[in-house]
Amino acid sequence: MEAPTALDWSTENCQVGRVMDLLGRPSVVVVLREVVNGVRRFEDMRRHAGLSRQVLTDRLTLLVDHGVLRRAPYRDEGSRERQEYRLTDKGFELYPTLVALAAFGARWYADPDGPATRMEHRGCGATVHPVMECAHGHRVDDPRDVTPAPGPGARPAGRGAAGDRA
Amino acid sequence: MEAPTALDWSTENCQVGRVMDLLGRPSVVVVLREVVNGVRRFEDMRRHAGLSRQVLTDRLTLLVDHGVLRRAPYRDEGSRERQEYRLTDKGFELYPTLVALAAFGARWYADPDGPATRMEHRGCGATVHPVMECAHGHRVDDPRDVTPAPGPGARPAGRGAAGDRA
Repeated sequence: MEAPTALDWSTENCQVGRVMDLLGRPSVVVVLREVVNGVRRFEDMRRHAGLSRQVLTDRLTLLVDHGVLRRAPYRDEGSRERQEYRLTDKGFELYPTLVALAAFGARWYADPDGPATRMEHRGCGATVHPVMECAHGHRVDDPRDVTPAPGPGARPAGRGAAGDRA
Repeated sequence: MEAPTALDWSTENCQVGRVMDLLGRPSVVVVLREVVNGVRRFEDMRRHAGLSRQVLTDRLTLLVDHGVLRRAPYRDEGSRERQEYRLTDKGFELYPTLVALAAFGARWYADPDGPATRMEHRGCGATVHPVMECAHGHRVDDPRDVTPAPGPGARPAGRGAAGDRA
């Protein structure tokens, strides 16, 4: 069998790997889910998601550092000013990913009575699901019609990666 | 301010949380990316993705246990039989998620010369991106038109979670 052509290309600057440096850590998407659900305050998130202070603090800092969340001040009557967390515009761009995760989870990880959460089309009320479409406007229903290809930033694999392959 | 209604519902059986028990671990999506890219053999994956044997073994086992990957035997001339890894049908259902991650990454985590990878429409050649659509057939372009809602499996939050909220 011939070697897969992907081995000719470096994974070093793969944008999916970089996104997963953020989202591929335990509880990061869970914290994001809380904010998307309107749970924006530290104590609410901590109790609702069942996270430790330390983990929650770390994940919120990470999401703010990546520009996915921003801090916004609020003050309850008689209390000092505190910070709550809101999605940035970049954060809102994660909706297709979150919708895809909710749909995949609904199909494979729900209880017998159905998924705990659904993403709803505001106003219409129907559940939102992910669809794939290409830049030429074709709808792509079969994942087998999608194939990864080197992008404009692809770099040849160096030695020590695929380069030393026999 | 009134408490967010999400606090009335338990996060315990949230399907997104359960999916992230798999995908929200370091290197899981990276391993998935390798297989999607046609890099199916242990040694190739290890070198191409730059993972340790131990991490790669662990993540492959996890992906097989979840039914996202399956093992398939192969034999190179003069060698003993080995196993390679392939996507299951369930694994193919992760394409909308992977397409969404690749698109988000292309926009926010690519080098100046562009993303290292693109998802291509086979035959047509155009880049595939994620679109949101509701069950009534409406295309949803603005994430602000999507709102999470309790699904059929939603459970009221117990005490100790949001239940003990003042």
